[in-house]
Amino acid sequence: MECQPQHAVEILSRTPTTLRALLQDLSDPWTHINLGAETWSAYDVVGHLIHGEETDWIPRAKIILQHGQSRPFEPFDRFAQFEPSKGQALKDRLDQFAHLRQQNLETLQQMNITSAQWELRGTHPELGTVTLRQLLATWVVHDLDHIGQIVEALAKQYTEAVGPWKAYLPILEE
Amino acid sequence: MECQPQHAVEILSRTPTTLRALLQDLSDPWTHINLGAETWSAYDVVGHLIHGEETDWIPRAKIILQHGQSRPFEPFDRFAQFEPSKGQALKDRLDQFAHLRQQNLETLQQMNITSAQWELRGTHPELGTVTLRQLLATWVVHDLDHIGQIVEALAKQYTEAVGPWKAYLPILEE
Repeated sequence: MECQPQHAVEILSRTPTTLRALLQDLSDPWTHINLGAETWSAYDVVGHLIHGEETDWIPRAKIILQHGQSRPFEPFDRFAQFEPSKGQALKDRLDQFAHLRQQNLETLQQMNITSAQWELRGTHPELGTVTLRQLLATWVVHDLDHIGQIVEALAKQYTEAVGPWKAYLPILEE
Repeated sequence: MECQPQHAVEILSRTPTTLRALLQDLSDPWTHINLGAETWSAYDVVGHLIHGEETDWIPRAKIILQHGQSRPFEPFDRFAQFEPSKGQALKDRLDQFAHLRQQNLETLQQMNITSAQWELRGTHPELGTVTLRQLLATWVVHDLDHIGQIVEALAKQYTEAVGPWKAYLPILEE
């Protein structure tokens, strides 16, 4: 499927609601336990999504529109969520994410990007040439990827609890 | 984490809301396209969850409570969603699932299962001996597994659209 802005925004605009439906008021054992040092809890993932709203998607779109390929994006810190807001409640993180996402979608709309502009190119510091349309598609898939990561983090709390049924549940595979 | 009924119900009760947040009013290309003959669209997955509410979880719990290991469960038809309600709108499927889930959670509560009863055993037609507590944990993980399947089905519509970013998005891996 080609990435059409109106389809992309359908997903982007509902991610905050999906995360609230999935996580708000869940008891802490579900949301704060990770599955080992290299894995993220649901709480960590929401922090990562907040950092993306602040530093990744719209800032990169602006760089493409203003500088094209001449200015590479700032590298994205994939571990920033472990720093500043560590003590924040999950509910506050969900609210903050929803607020930032709404602001960013309003900004995106105000940018009035034309069909031709969606094909403009930028420079990713590691991946090289990318287009504005690919950036938009990646924003969408990044949301879905991390929703998937959250449901996996929740499911794996019950890896032992399901007993023999583990064989039928692909989400519990290593 | 051990499967405690009150924790399990936290997840089970929010799955209908999560599915609505994720899918309701999404345009058809997102929800009705699968990714090849062996894969399910989001629409197919909701049909599968409905069939589980009708024939799997509570009926099997009743078999364990009434018959123990002497009566194996009916095998579960994993492809039933492709039969009766093929023409049903997605919104109607989401409503039907929410209704059945609410009914089943009420039934579960009315069953007043004791700590000792959660350890009762039943016979799965393929997996052999299982406990009532494992059945409850599996109900939860089965929900999460299929939410993960839905976000993967949505994400993979954009496998080509993300361009070079595919390398950073585990959900797009084959």
